[in-house]
Amino acid sequence: MKLVRYGNPGKEKPGLIDADGKLRDLSAVVKDIGPEQLGDAALAKLRRLKTASLPLVKGSPRLGSPVAGVGKFIAIGLNYADHAAESGLPIPPEPVVFMKATSCIQGPNDPVMLPKGSVKSDWEIELGVVIGTRARYVSQKDALSFVAGYCTINDVSEREFQIERGGTWDKGKGCDTFGPLGPWLVTRDDVPNPQKLAMWLDLNGKRMQTGNTKTMIFSVAKIVSYCSQFMTLLPGDVITTGTPPGVGLGMKPPMYLKKGDVMTLGIEGLGEQRQLVVPFKL
Amino acid sequence: MKLVRYGNPGKEKPGLIDADGKLRDLSAVVKDIGPEQLGDAALAKLRRLKTASLPLVKGSPRLGSPVAGVGKFIAIGLNYADHAAESGLPIPPEPVVFMKATSCIQGPNDPVMLPKGSVKSDWEIELGVVIGTRARYVSQKDALSFVAGYCTINDVSEREFQIERGGTWDKGKGCDTFGPLGPWLVTRDDVPNPQKLAMWLDLNGKRMQTGNTKTMIFSVAKIVSYCSQFMTLLPGDVITTGTPPGVGLGMKPPMYLKKGDVMTLGIEGLGEQRQLVVPFKL
Repeated sequence: MKLVRYGNPGKEKPGLIDADGKLRDLSAVVKDIGPEQLGDAALAKLRRLKTASLPLVKGSPRLGSPVAGVGKFIAIGLNYADHAAESGLPIPPEPVVFMKATSCIQGPNDPVMLPKGSVKSDWEIELGVVIGTRARYVSQKDALSFVAGYCTINDVSEREFQIERGGTWDKGKGCDTFGPLGPWLVTRDDVPNPQKLAMWLDLNGKRMQTGNTKTMIFSVAKIVSYCSQFMTLLPGDVITTGTPPGVGLGMKPPMYLKKGDVMTLGIEGLGEQRQLVVPFKL
Repeated sequence: MKLVRYGNPGKEKPGLIDADGKLRDLSAVVKDIGPEQLGDAALAKLRRLKTASLPLVKGSPRLGSPVAGVGKFIAIGLNYADHAAESGLPIPPEPVVFMKATSCIQGPNDPVMLPKGSVKSDWEIELGVVIGTRARYVSQKDALSFVAGYCTINDVSEREFQIERGGTWDKGKGCDTFGPLGPWLVTRDDVPNPQKLAMWLDLNGKRMQTGNTKTMIFSVAKIVSYCSQFMTLLPGDVITTGTPPGVGLGMKPPMYLKKGDVMTLGIEGLGEQRQLVVPFKL
């Protein structure tokens, strides 16, 4: 199933994309796509719906984040060996965990705003994992059964704020609009192997990142299990799992986002995003 | 005003502590003490209530976190010069920002669980700041007007997870039960100067931390303004502002929490907490 949330920011309705790629409204069935709709039983109910009987949505409304009510937005750093190398950092012996502010989450095609004074804003195509079931101290073997599904994420990052401003990375990772999610939440039954997904990102039509989740250092199952050793993962929590090579920081010389740039990015089976880069406005 | 949330975990009701120190129920007036009740207008309404007419609550119910619906739990590191010194770290040139998982938030007197395998769990008495009004790029001069109020926080920290496990500090800061908040949310009108509050923490009755917010490196106003340069602060967001000297990591030799320990801690005018240290249980 491909679940979506569509409509104006803060007023999104739940929907799904049917087998013909058409958007259908789920408002009469569920209130939203959030923590309460992400457990296995709740998803099974949606799966049993006769899709053809759901109302078709006219036009091409804006898409919001396909998940509402995200409690934690956890991120894994340096999870592709080549990306660690281009960042000039060693391959980590265990997952690097940081957090993105939940207030940075937005729709997949909403503009990305450069923070005031930003000169080093950068892109990162990543596989997003949405938790469906409360998970504490879960084994790697069982970990994927706690996942509701997957989505495309752009882990937008301000490198000066992240690296040169002291302390942890969180300062440069959670700026407003730095968390485009979607277009779809693809439930895990439709992603038979999360470690075999091609991914790419273009800047102004030029391919910058090409990768595949098969080259992750730590698999999705390992990451979910690992994070659950440090904190309870709750339904609706999102984990973004690191980026393959090709970010602006790794270019020689480095290159960063500027007003008017367009990022297009996608993951095999999880859909594409498109973001125009704009100056910050209140 | 001293606002509280009382009752069993997940079922807390809103209340306030009256001038005689008695707990009165606010359920008939507001649904909860959360983002929608923290703005200046909403708080002004509560302030106009005739306190004596509110129902008295019998007994001594458990207190929960005095704020519900916390979207971000931001933390400032090394914000007291003496604590930076005991941690063996230089005074930061600008605030060190990290994040605690919102899932670690609990009531002020709930037990603190040692994570599995933890041998370096530590205490940190801190002044908590609760945001009342959406704040982006606010000046230091205006910053305090975006604050709903203040509370006592124990920024419980697992030093091995925080420092020795690679990556940022977040791994050791957001473990379940590592964020006791309260007992009260004291609205800012009742805290005329947040930079003049005595604070203390005892372990098993022995004074470990003695401090005063007057020795903060970066003031509350500076911190609120600073964080708002990196991300929008939303009503209900909590910022914990760093700890004075006296944590276990700074002892010679270091000493850490063990099963059966009792932490008692408080801040002048903001109330006291008491936590029994227990082993992790699912």
